Amino acid sequence: MIVVKVGGSAGIDYDLFCDDIAQLVTAGEHVVLIHGGSHETNVISEKLGKPPRILTSSQGYTSRYTDSETLDIFAMVYAGKMNTRIVERLQKRGVNAVGLSGIDGRLLEGTRKASVRAVIDGKQVLVRDDFTGKVEKVNASLLHLLLDAGYTPVLTPPAVSYEGEAINVDGDRAAAMVAAALGAKQLIILSNVPGLLRSFPDESTLIRDIRYADLEQALGFAEGRMKKKVLGATEAIAAGVEQVIFGDARRARPIWNSMNGEGTVIHK
Amino acid sequence: MIVVKVGGSAGIDYDLFCDDIAQLVTAGEHVVLIHGGSHETNVISEKLGKPPRILTSSQGYTSRYTDSETLDIFAMVYAGKMNTRIVERLQKRGVNAVGLSGIDGRLLEGTRKASVRAVIDGKQVLVRDDFTGKVEKVNASLLHLLLDAGYTPVLTPPAVSYEGEAINVDGDRAAAMVAAALGAKQLIILSNVPGLLRSFPDESTLIRDIRYADLEQALGFAEGRMKKKVLGATEAIAAGVEQVIFGDARRARPIWNSMNGEGTVIHK
Repeated sequence: MIVVKVGGSAGIDYDLFCDDIAQLVTAGEHVVLIHGGSHETNVISEKLGKPPRILTSSQGYTSRYTDSETLDIFAMVYAGKMNTRIVERLQKRGVNAVGLSGIDGRLLEGTRKASVRAVIDGKQVLVRDDFTGKVEKVNASLLHLLLDAGYTPVLTPPAVSYEGEAINVDGDRAAAMVAAALGAKQLIILSNVPGLLRSFPDESTLIRDIRYADLEQALGFAEGRMKKKVLGATEAIAAGVEQVIFGDARRARPIWNSMNGEGTVIHK
Repeated sequence: MIVVKVGGSAGIDYDLFCDDIAQLVTAGEHVVLIHGGSHETNVISEKLGKPPRILTSSQGYTSRYTDSETLDIFAMVYAGKMNTRIVERLQKRGVNAVGLSGIDGRLLEGTRKASVRAVIDGKQVLVRDDFTGKVEKVNASLLHLLLDAGYTPVLTPPAVSYEGEAINVDGDRAAAMVAAALGAKQLIILSNVPGLLRSFPDESTLIRDIRYADLEQALGFAEGRMKKKVLGATEAIAAGVEQVIFGDARRARPIWNSMNGEGTVIHK
């Protein structure tokens, strides 16, 4: 069982990891893919006249301000365009993929935040109409049902609140919960950088190996979206996943390379 | 087993049929829902600067001209926004819905048309970059897998070609294939009219009952999108479905009313 998260930043080549998944599935491996869609959501949001607004929490974590209209756009891009086109790529390679968002079958479930204290455009605000949350429960039985029947699940935010609302959640942390719920030994997190860099964006400063005990220190090197990836890695290992690997989605064989320990390997 | 198709035209109240589905599922009934999204796709297409273009075939059937960029928008609206929001409505009502497009698990599979001879904006054209087709095969085993595990499938175009491409297909005719593949006795097709009208749009001219043998004649009364619904009904009954009912999605209890024979009832 391999759980792969692929980001939604600019520069990611979606054909490359689909090639790897086709090889793995043909060899009899169970693969669960989780993908993002942040870059494309920004593009479509701008085109629709609803430019993205980013919330920054007091700890410096960023998230998309997601009112109901933004959630519509978010669902359109993540669950509509991105998910459909990734499933299509896999179907063309003979992988019988099934695309699901976290609301389907309550696959990714969690608490919607009642209110978010954050900084928007430099101003301190208390946001109440934000449909965001954090995945706390994974419907592993639905994933096993599909995997055992020969399907390859392709998952995407949004998730679902306990009240049944669609909510925006962080994909990396959701992937950590999925890997833990499935008892996966490896969680591979692919993005448009080679891994965690000691001095971003200098790729020659790649950190090759991080022990769980040193993760808090490593968080200090993480910039922007990488912070949530380190947080996700911490949560995955705390929940029993043996290895989390940050790999480069821009190069050929990104999943194989990651399984072979290229990128940043995080472990107990 | 009840198969319900709900259209995507303006004026449809999505809460009403979700109320009915919640009652049916609570009572132990298996329900499969298929939905459209044409109106919202037109709205989003306009906003994105890619206004919809309609192909009219030599027989007078209309379809959306679906190049690759249009298919992206189509997938965003149908599989993204519409599907997510309908699944959300059902989840809020305690129904464990699972949204799937036809490409997921090759649920709705068919031939992509090599080229389409049609009229666009009054001109005769041969269209080659059109990603459209017709559903010929339904993956009923995936639907049974989900239904037997307590999930309620919510299906939407696009479908998938035999080559693995996402293709635009007519939802009513897809619903006919789904009802036939599942051995459903009734297929309920809800839209923003009370049924087939002898003299559209005069709702007092509702045709209450049509025998299969008289369907070709009935096709003469059908205008615009209703032509495909009549075609879908013809195909469903030819494939063994006992009754197809055209019902009104704008009124309370649309599914119950249809099951009780309101609207236009089509039968052997």
